[in-house]
Amino acid sequence: MEFSFDNFAKEGLHEECGVFGIFSDGTINPAYACYNGLLALQHRGQESCGIAVSDEGVIDYHKDMGLVTEVFNNKILDSLNGQMAVSHVRYSTAGGSVLENAQPLVMRYVKGTLSIAHNGNLTNALEIRRGLEQRGAIFQTTIDSEVICYVIARERLKCHSVEDAVARTMQVIEGAYSLLVMSPRKLIAVRDPHGFRPLCMGKYNDSYVFASESAALDACGAEFVRDVEPGEIVIVDQNGVRSMKPDFGDKKKALCIFEYIYFARSDSFIDGVSVYEARKQAGRILARKYPVEADMVVGVPESGIDAAIGYSEESGIPYEKAIVKNSYIGRTFIKPSQKERMKSVKIKLNPIADKIKGKRVVIIDDSIVRGTTVDRIVTMLKEAGAKEVHMRISSPPFMWPCYYGTDIPSRGELIACNHTIEEITKLSKADSLGYLPVESLREMIHNAPVGFCDGCFTGNYPAPITKETFKGKERGGMNFDENNKKDN
Amino acid sequence: MEFSFDNFAKEGLHEECGVFGIFSDGTINPAYACYNGLLALQHRGQESCGIAVSDEGVIDYHKDMGLVTEVFNNKILDSLNGQMAVSHVRYSTAGGSVLENAQPLVMRYVKGTLSIAHNGNLTNALEIRRGLEQRGAIFQTTIDSEVICYVIARERLKCHSVEDAVARTMQVIEGAYSLLVMSPRKLIAVRDPHGFRPLCMGKYNDSYVFASESAALDACGAEFVRDVEPGEIVIVDQNGVRSMKPDFGDKKKALCIFEYIYFARSDSFIDGVSVYEARKQAGRILARKYPVEADMVVGVPESGIDAAIGYSEESGIPYEKAIVKNSYIGRTFIKPSQKERMKSVKIKLNPIADKIKGKRVVIIDDSIVRGTTVDRIVTMLKEAGAKEVHMRISSPPFMWPCYYGTDIPSRGELIACNHTIEEITKLSKADSLGYLPVESLREMIHNAPVGFCDGCFTGNYPAPITKETFKGKERGGMNFDENNKKDN
Amino acid sequence: MEFSFDNFAKEGLHEECGVFGIFSDGTINPAYACYNGLLALQHRGQESCGIAVSDEGVIDYHKDMGLVTEVFNNKILDSLNGQMAVSHVRYSTAGGSVLENAQPLVMRYVKGTLSIAHNGNLTNALEIRRGLEQRGAIFQTTIDSEVICYVIARERLKCHSVEDAVARTMQVIEGAYSLLVMSPRKLIAVRDPHGFRPLCMGKYNDSYVFASESAALDACGAEFVRDVEPGEIVIVDQNGVRSMKPDFGDKKKALCIFEYIYFARSDSFIDGVSVYEARKQAGRILARKYPVEADMVVGVPESGIDAAIGYSEESGIPYEKAIVKNSYIGRTFIKPSQKERMKSVKIKLNPIADKIKGKRVVIIDDSIVRGTTVDRIVTMLKEAGAKEVHMRISSPPFMWPCYYGTDIPSRGELIACNHTIEEITKLSKADSLGYLPVESLREMIHNAPVGFCDGCFTGNYPAPITKETFKGKERGGMNFDENNKKDN
Amino acid sequence: MEFSFDNFAKEGLHEECGVFGIFSDGTINPAYACYNGLLALQHRGQESCGIAVSDEGVIDYHKDMGLVTEVFNNKILDSLNGQMAVSHVRYSTAGGSVLENAQPLVMRYVKGTLSIAHNGNLTNALEIRRGLEQRGAIFQTTIDSEVICYVIARERLKCHSVEDAVARTMQVIEGAYSLLVMSPRKLIAVRDPHGFRPLCMGKYNDSYVFASESAALDACGAEFVRDVEPGEIVIVDQNGVRSMKPDFGDKKKALCIFEYIYFARSDSFIDGVSVYEARKQAGRILARKYPVEADMVVGVPESGIDAAIGYSEESGIPYEKAIVKNSYIGRTFIKPSQKERMKSVKIKLNPIADKIKGKRVVIIDDSIVRGTTVDRIVTMLKEAGAKEVHMRISSPPFMWPCYYGTDIPSRGELIACNHTIEEITKLSKADSLGYLPVESLREMIHNAPVGFCDGCFTGNYPAPITKETFKGKERGGMNFDENNKKDN
Repeated sequence: MEFSFDNFAKEGLHEECGVFGIFSDGTINPAYACYNGLLALQHRGQESCGIAVSDEGVIDYHKDMGLVTEVFNNKILDSLNGQMAVSHVRYSTAGGSVLENAQPLVMRYVKGTLSIAHNGNLTNALEIRRGLEQRGAIFQTTIDSEVICYVIARERLKCHSVEDAVARTMQVIEGAYSLLVMSPRKLIAVRDPHGFRPLCMGKYNDSYVFASESAALDACGAEFVRDVEPGEIVIVDQNGVRSMKPDFGDKKKALCIFEYIYFARSDSFIDGVSVYEARKQAGRILARKYPVEADMVVGVPESGIDAAIGYSEESGIPYEKAIVKNSYIGRTFIKPSQKERMKSVKIKLNPIADKIKGKRVVIIDDSIVRGTTVDRIVTMLKEAGAKEVHMRISSPPFMWPCYYGTDIPSRGELIACNHTIEEITKLSKADSLGYLPVESLREMIHNAPVGFCDGCFTGNYPAPITKETFKGKERGGMNFDENNKKDN
Repeated sequence: MEFSFDNFAKEGLHEECGVFGIFSDGTINPAYACYNGLLALQHRGQESCGIAVSDEGVIDYHKDMGLVTEVFNNKILDSLNGQMAVSHVRYSTAGGSVLENAQPLVMRYVKGTLSIAHNGNLTNALEIRRGLEQRGAIFQTTIDSEVICYVIARERLKCHSVEDAVARTMQVIEGAYSLLVMSPRKLIAVRDPHGFRPLCMGKYNDSYVFASESAALDACGAEFVRDVEPGEIVIVDQNGVRSMKPDFGDKKKALCIFEYIYFARSDSFIDGVSVYEARKQAGRILARKYPVEADMVVGVPESGIDAAIGYSEESGIPYEKAIVKNSYIGRTFIKPSQKERMKSVKIKLNPIADKIKGKRVVIIDDSIVRGTTVDRIVTMLKEAGAKEVHMRISSPPFMWPCYYGTDIPSRGELIACNHTIEEITKLSKADSLGYLPVESLREMIHNAPVGFCDGCFTGNYPAPITKETFKGKERGGMNFDENNKKDN
Repeated sequence: MEFSFDNFAKEGLHEECGVFGIFSDGTINPAYACYNGLLALQHRGQESCGIAVSDEGVIDYHKDMGLVTEVFNNKILDSLNGQMAVSHVRYSTAGGSVLENAQPLVMRYVKGTLSIAHNGNLTNALEIRRGLEQRGAIFQTTIDSEVICYVIARERLKCHSVEDAVARTMQVIEGAYSLLVMSPRKLIAVRDPHGFRPLCMGKYNDSYVFASESAALDACGAEFVRDVEPGEIVIVDQNGVRSMKPDFGDKKKALCIFEYIYFARSDSFIDGVSVYEARKQAGRILARKYPVEADMVVGVPESGIDAAIGYSEESGIPYEKAIVKNSYIGRTFIKPSQKERMKSVKIKLNPIADKIKGKRVVIIDDSIVRGTTVDRIVTMLKEAGAKEVHMRISSPPFMWPCYYGTDIPSRGELIACNHTIEEITKLSKADSLGYLPVESLREMIHNAPVGFCDGCFTGNYPAPITKETFKGKERGGMNFDENNKKDN
Repeated sequence: MEFSFDNFAKEGLHEECGVFGIFSDGTINPAYACYNGLLALQHRGQESCGIAVSDEGVIDYHKDMGLVTEVFNNKILDSLNGQMAVSHVRYSTAGGSVLENAQPLVMRYVKGTLSIAHNGNLTNALEIRRGLEQRGAIFQTTIDSEVICYVIARERLKCHSVEDAVARTMQVIEGAYSLLVMSPRKLIAVRDPHGFRPLCMGKYNDSYVFASESAALDACGAEFVRDVEPGEIVIVDQNGVRSMKPDFGDKKKALCIFEYIYFARSDSFIDGVSVYEARKQAGRILARKYPVEADMVVGVPESGIDAAIGYSEESGIPYEKAIVKNSYIGRTFIKPSQKERMKSVKIKLNPIADKIKGKRVVIIDDSIVRGTTVDRIVTMLKEAGAKEVHMRISSPPFMWPCYYGTDIPSRGELIACNHTIEEITKLSKADSLGYLPVESLREMIHNAPVGFCDGCFTGNYPAPITKETFKGKERGGMNFDENNKKDN
């Protein structure tokens, strides 16, 4: 079999964003803290990034397309002075210049300035936007975060503080949002009532830090304090930190389970659970549910490695690093423009053939989406001489799209919607294939009392999906272009 | 005398913008037409530029800091497909990243998309913005053009077409604006009731083109049709072109006279008058009002040359090109960071010493603002050996700031506000000095029936200046930063 | 304890270069093959890279400072047409613009063009250069590769083919060189008589490929054929491939042992030995020589991981991925310009604290050079709560500088030259410390019959070091600047 | 008639280079002086530029493709410390990356370092290079300046100082060269025995400055001292300045007459003659030789303007600036990739139609090369309504190629070689056409005792042209690529 050239540009899922913010006591530079924090969150978004700082209410910011190390340098960071900051990384899509969609969004409203960094996806953004337009609003981006800004600005007219406006906004917007809001005097961290996306709080001397993942606290030297709770509003200003918990009725706690499986860093702790341990646990469960006689357990780098260590631990089969990943290949990989046929090139991933030859291999990956990667991995191992290849997947089959901020595609593209496990096994050319059972998800997180969202596996969505959102599911925001009316 | 290093970075005045738009019949590519048009208008703004195209109502655009040749290339232009386009060049200020303020502004409102390119300055923008904020509006830029967008979006809710919304908007906004508005189906060109800024219409086969100056029509091969009239709205759509003239009461026609003196290109015709002829005429008037015995007439390149030719023609004194300008020195001139003393360096302008030595020279420049250039020019000529230097200025003394879109500074900085002509003559070291008399301005434009604004010379402002605008006079837009409230 | 900000910018050793070349049969594009090959060799040099192609003897090339993905794009690769190519990656030093030193070197000489890609360091380059200068030679770079070009050009005058000239050159130059030479009609691969640096040969249909490491063959789809032997000259032209082995007397085979320990990729095979297996073997030896009771074995990413797996395998202590590396931090890491104190930030490496807390940890790293990293690793683990930290090093102590192409520094900087193991243990704060014994190096490579150079550990240098080379040991080439005579 | 899109990308001739050097007494920074000097010489070369500084014999340099303002910034200039410097601008060709050919060339030879900046073209470079190759030399560029370096390095072995080596070199090389040579302790300025290219000397306090044109002295504040004489070697070191005049036999003084006509700046003085005055004189001569009744005299900007002023002065016909040049269009002008037909666009040059309409116009340009511009100018004026167009050319017809450093093409491309004046007049559509008579060239330079080369007009070449040079006439250096031998 011959591979196409870009075989191992792994079909992946993408988180939409990461956020990081700080209210400094003067012992830490907000812009540099954000820089370190964003570096630690870079895996959550590689399209664009930005930092907005507030210097006594005067905002300065810098944002651009590209990685954190490409967008920022000493000169820029030194120019971003202030006492507090919010910052953002956004996920990398293919195609056009969408700098307008980079965050933080910075705007002026009746009470001064507002800077917003947002992770998640609203499920009623289109409806709200339509309503605002009917009252004369104009929009300069295609992201739902601008809708949030508008609602806050409007609600601010009806109440006495920006935190009250945020609380009122939370009664209007629906869906997933972990939000950092910077007003002239306050830094406000918000997590939606379901708690779809993670958000935690740290401390550095008397500075307060908020980040999508605890690993970002480590990166700026802050100590982990606690997770922001679903439905909670944490306000930091010169008087210190305080919390509000508006009443949202009975909302199911629903952290995205895929944060543990794939999105988050191994060294993060989310809602009381170690990501690394959860992944190892998934490996252990797979070892129990799908045991096999084999010579080694191998993880597909990087996301399959933790589960492979767990599988090895449980099964006693030795763990080996038999596939090597080239860390110099990033977003810019070049394919030949000529349509020349290339033999099975191993550019991104390369097996250690002499280790694999004649061996029975258990290979572990985090998920199967469209099915275009799995057979390449199996073929690569077989070409390297593996006697048997047993594929284990540390998540259940994807059956449903996600409306809360990840890019799990529509059902038509999901291989598990259109094929049985047997068919997928056959297509993958593996000697056996085992998915993590849906019913083991709770066990994966060590039966911790964490409510989670498994809508992509079960179709049980914790928050209602509007008809427009259902139709408009699309990467990168609301379905703007179809929405173009022809004025007359 | 010793000069500082950047002697001849001529203190200049700057127009704020140039606009160019096209509704194509298919025989001309809108993006390339805009590229040519913007190149021809580059002198009106070197800070940033942008092109927005509409492809059946779907907008694509590209804008960035920099010159037209830096911001655009074939790949970008080829990607901008559509049937119509609006585009913009913005003037170069020092300092920070202000990409957010680049134009055209592109936004979505209740009726689809709206793209706006704006030349001029509103005099009641702050008041309108405050009012909009009181009703929940948010602002993402610091330019008054965003205010115009908002008002159009609001007015659109109350009427039946975008052109009606534009007409209603013109009853709300005050000051200077030559405006191109692109809705999903229409290209609309607007000139404020006073006609402060120029705007003309051209034709290329059945395509309609609008530009700040007629030279930009030449640059894309279009034929000049006519100027857009003050207070006129010209609408182009698939049915052709039509005009609206809302009633604005009795508004004085008030084209900025400084367009003839300095801003516009020599090869443009504005409101029926040739810019080149007006400048030559200014030279002729100076020759009559301030005759002198001399050996040659020299213009300070480039803006003084036309008037110098006119002075030579009227006086019979030979015209000479005795000062050479280095055209490779642009915005990026570097000064030594060491504080070393440099002798009178002639980098930007260099006199032809052997031509000047022992001669009586009439030297003509377009204006004196702060007075920092004039003595350098005189000293340069004297050092080159000139026996006498007679300075003639092809405009009257600047006495008042401009609120309609040029950066004439506050009175404190204007040398003519603080010194008599005699004092200025003495400061300049010239043997004589003559300004164009205010009362000759009409003669300068050959007594053409053109109403003009000479507020900067006379203090007679044709449109009312609000108190906020008066205080807020500042480069680059509204005085936003002082405006930062502290929310609580 | 407080760390400085850039704690974990790991003090590393650097290989000077990687080379890749191809003589194509027409079924593979040489420029794209080089691109893939260089990507696979990027770990050997991140300073600059280049590709030279020969199209019927007409050379075109592109080289620049930066990573392979930064220097090349489709447009450039498509412009590099030809039948054969040589290419190069060079190691990243700090500081000045040294594009002149980028390779391949391309030059014209009496027989047409010559392109050279060179990995290694000559030990008599200065002497040869002096001699050439005495006869009128001029030099445009500071690298010894230019000396090789000169010698080939001179020798070519005395013999009948370029390969003969290369063979004669090998009698003149001394030290380490794996060399690819491209003449108008031939691709020539050369390895010095000691075989200090690796070089292997692969095949893709009837195309011949040469690379510093076998992993680069995988990356372009070529099959491994064999290593180029020490002292061998392999010539490929349209008549196929042939080999020359000039007589060099009795030269000890001396492959750099540090290729196995650190430089090469885990998935490469060098001179018949798997790098991954050698590293695991080092871990196993350490487990036997320095056993300890512990709860987990952890590798310092990436280079300590293979040995950690081996240690775990031999000792039965579980392997854990308890330190996470941020792969987005490259060469461009920014330190704050303010001298603010930062608490122990974990930006590049971050421990999974909840895994480590209260545990006895065996931590494995590949080497200790100056000793500035080891105590940071130990402190990081102790701060994360480790009860005991047992450091194991998968190489012997560095006692001597390297003159053959790696940047092991002078003895004054090597911690093991100035401290006993006990002192180093104490400085590192580890509970125990064990180095791989020098006498186990042969066991590390599974007692394979590979002659190796362990000069950096033993001071036994296989090739003579001239006095000038001894004095001139320095990064980036010959000690040129001190060499500036003052002409008179 | 319809024009192609790039009508007025004027077919021009190009000088190959400009040089600038300084030996500082400490009161002026050499790098910044070079920066200013190169800016003033930018018209002589826009392809690449570079500055090399010598700090007590240690060379640092920076060179790159692009304009002076693009290649240098404060950071780079501040890093270039030293007591003396040489610098260079090179002319802009289309196509490939030829950074290797940028100057100054910096090399190491037996006596330390040598930096060379060269303006001109050798006529026996190929022969010398062949000879050097036969003795083992290698070449890394395709420019003849590298040949000069080699010869100096070789000759230095045979004598006692670098200036003696330069003197000996001048006996070997033939053709055009104005040369700046920087050795560890000396700055040496050289002009070939014919004096083809200009070179002058200035003084700034006790610093000595050398430049291709006197205008570059003005730009750094230096005073003009004198021209370097043909065949002269000027040496500056810490002991001051001295001159050598080796015996070259009877060499005809042969300054390129085209320096006066086109290459040099109007404000330069070359060998005692004002460029501006020479151009005006050419205009006066044309007025006498080809008088005509007309309403105005117009120069094609910029190079035709001086002669137009002279024509006007002599004829009494008024001078008008009736064609406007867009100074924002540089090298990067973009043509539409679509092959759409554009009407006569006036992007680079635009006539002031209302001035021209119905008028008889004398239009003056500096030269006609291929004839592709002249008819466009005439057509442009006629389309603008000119009643008559009388073309006057301020140089004689080009009949022969240039071998001394300008890119006058081969005879096949020269319109005057293949057409009579009558035919050219007809092709140009002008009502009359007059060239400056060859016999008036001496009158043009006011009968100054300047020997000049008019080989391009007469075929009388002052220095012998070798057969190889004759065949190899080509832009950018020696015809290297055809020269590729196939080694065997």
